[in-house]
Amino acid sequence: MKKAVFIKEGQVAIKDAPMPEIIEQDDAVIRVVRTCVCGSDLWAYRGDDAKEAGSDNSGHEIIGIVEKVGAAINTVKAGDFVIAPFTHGCGHCAACRAGFEGGCQSHSAATNFSNGYQAEYVRYTHADWSLVKIPGQPDDYSEGMLKSFLALADVMPTGYHAARVANVKAGDTVAVVGDGAVGLCAVIAAKLRGAKRIIIMSRHEDRQQLALEFGATDVVAERGEEGIAKVLELTNGDGVDAALECVGTHLSTETAIAIARPGAVVGRVGVPHTGDINVGDYFMKNTIFAGGPASVTTYDKAVLLKAVLDGDINPGKVFTQTYKLSDIDQAYKDMQERKTIKAMITID
Amino acid sequence: MKKAVFIKEGQVAIKDAPMPEIIEQDDAVIRVVRTCVCGSDLWAYRGDDAKEAGSDNSGHEIIGIVEKVGAAINTVKAGDFVIAPFTHGCGHCAACRAGFEGGCQSHSAATNFSNGYQAEYVRYTHADWSLVKIPGQPDDYSEGMLKSFLALADVMPTGYHAARVANVKAGDTVAVVGDGAVGLCAVIAAKLRGAKRIIIMSRHEDRQQLALEFGATDVVAERGEEGIAKVLELTNGDGVDAALECVGTHLSTETAIAIARPGAVVGRVGVPHTGDINVGDYFMKNTIFAGGPASVTTYDKAVLLKAVLDGDINPGKVFTQTYKLSDIDQAYKDMQERKTIKAMITID
Repeated sequence: MKKAVFIKEGQVAIKDAPMPEIIEQDDAVIRVVRTCVCGSDLWAYRGDDAKEAGSDNSGHEIIGIVEKVGAAINTVKAGDFVIAPFTHGCGHCAACRAGFEGGCQSHSAATNFSNGYQAEYVRYTHADWSLVKIPGQPDDYSEGMLKSFLALADVMPTGYHAARVANVKAGDTVAVVGDGAVGLCAVIAAKLRGAKRIIIMSRHEDRQQLALEFGATDVVAERGEEGIAKVLELTNGDGVDAALECVGTHLSTETAIAIARPGAVVGRVGVPHTGDINVGDYFMKNTIFAGGPASVTTYDKAVLLKAVLDGDINPGKVFTQTYKLSDIDQAYKDMQERKTIKAMITID
Repeated sequence: MKKAVFIKEGQVAIKDAPMPEIIEQDDAVIRVVRTCVCGSDLWAYRGDDAKEAGSDNSGHEIIGIVEKVGAAINTVKAGDFVIAPFTHGCGHCAACRAGFEGGCQSHSAATNFSNGYQAEYVRYTHADWSLVKIPGQPDDYSEGMLKSFLALADVMPTGYHAARVANVKAGDTVAVVGDGAVGLCAVIAAKLRGAKRIIIMSRHEDRQQLALEFGATDVVAERGEEGIAKVLELTNGDGVDAALECVGTHLSTETAIAIARPGAVVGRVGVPHTGDINVGDYFMKNTIFAGGPASVTTYDKAVLLKAVLDGDINPGKVFTQTYKLSDIDQAYKDMQERKTIKAMITID
């Protein structure tokens, strides 16, 4: 079977790899129907992170058909159409019961997250509780619907996580810091949870337009001090009830803190590259820092899959270009050059 | 009138001071009935914080009788018996409306907090929304009830703040890190909010006993790694749903993080002396950091005054010794030497 691997800075390629097999009793093997490129895949591609030639890409988002399952799997069977969350919770530990399966206490970090999933087939660890069954088969759905299902493997639940940990509720004024696929999905999530006003901080016109389509009410194109001043001006100096930080840099985190009113939550889902932001520094403002890896299975099962099936949300629109697996290097290049918001990959 | 001032490390004294007057239209002058010594007063007394000879102590907790009010005060009048919260919110800005008057957006930090209140009379800034009226007069109440009213000026609402920002709810397992007056009040708050299990981390037997009386179900006397291991053992390895950090040191904060299950909140009210605890470091665990100056008026009016009047809670028990204002230096000494949990001061 074919699989994308990292070659060097600026190059990924397809190689032949052995068919994945059931190793543990709670494994599933999944035939991939759609995969995609994540912003986090670009760290090594840009040369910002060191990575060994020939190693797996971090790609971790798929929808697919269950090919076979281990003896401990009771919830899905061969032939089922599934979303494969990037988090693989057990569903019964204290962390999972509280809806934080990104920190599942039954599994090691090594097997609790997906990796190397830009491939024709994958081995999915801890599959029993984690996989999310989609009714019917891929052929029953439009390409747009398949895109939205694929968004449910990571970016949409991750945007939702920002809004959930920030306790976004009806009537709130929310700012989303960052206009990547996750930031755009955070706009969808804020609207789904009833936010009255949603300010997107975005410098790119295509992303601003999609944010407005998803429910944003205001766009702030400025960054840094100017961006902060603009958000405060838009909120009569109050600041926002929740700041959804969807980038992870020092600037985006400091921005989120500055635009949050006292006691507001910074819901952060951008993998932190923040440097020295000390928890003690924001005590007097009662700033609440929340967030981490999303609770994909929890949100998909409770809220998001139904919202997609009912047509209430359309997160698949973040996939603005589609590529064949054999063209995946071009998909990486176009994402890096911002020619596409997020690149979907079909299996040839 | 008499007022306690800081003389030097290890010494405070009473001096004559001019009667405070109404300066701003929203001021009140209050005749102090009871005041007390706060743990934070001890920083300078111990010599850990530099302080000028003859300057005000940070004492900021009183109950008293309104002596006179400015023209903008409509909620209280001369003769009213009041709790004087250490936070002086406006009640109508976005921060106050959200229940975070410690960050009141209408007031400067200089006038939003009490200071220098170990005195016969005080000037209370921004009094209109902030003061909390107690029915009747001091003579209508027992000494124990007066102690509980005094606890409502800071320590009880501060303990409640830890539990509120940590979202403690019915059935939760909660740990309280720290056995000072605030930590003990956090035990009361956790019980009031319905926590099923309350673990107090305390090394002092008198405080352990009071914590148990207040509703703690388990005592952990160990500190550091041993204390963490003990809490995890008590919770079958799960960790707690909420960790109430009532000290503010690096050790107490790291302990709170370590005993919190993924996605749990560290509700922190100890003024931070934490050093380098970076928000990025706890991302993978979804640790939520919340807290800051308490919302005294909000909690007193909504929950705590009624709970005291009804006899449901008895936070005044943290005052284990009473001193005359003229003996205040002894009160400081005894608190520093842990001969009393918290020292109440009567006005001679």
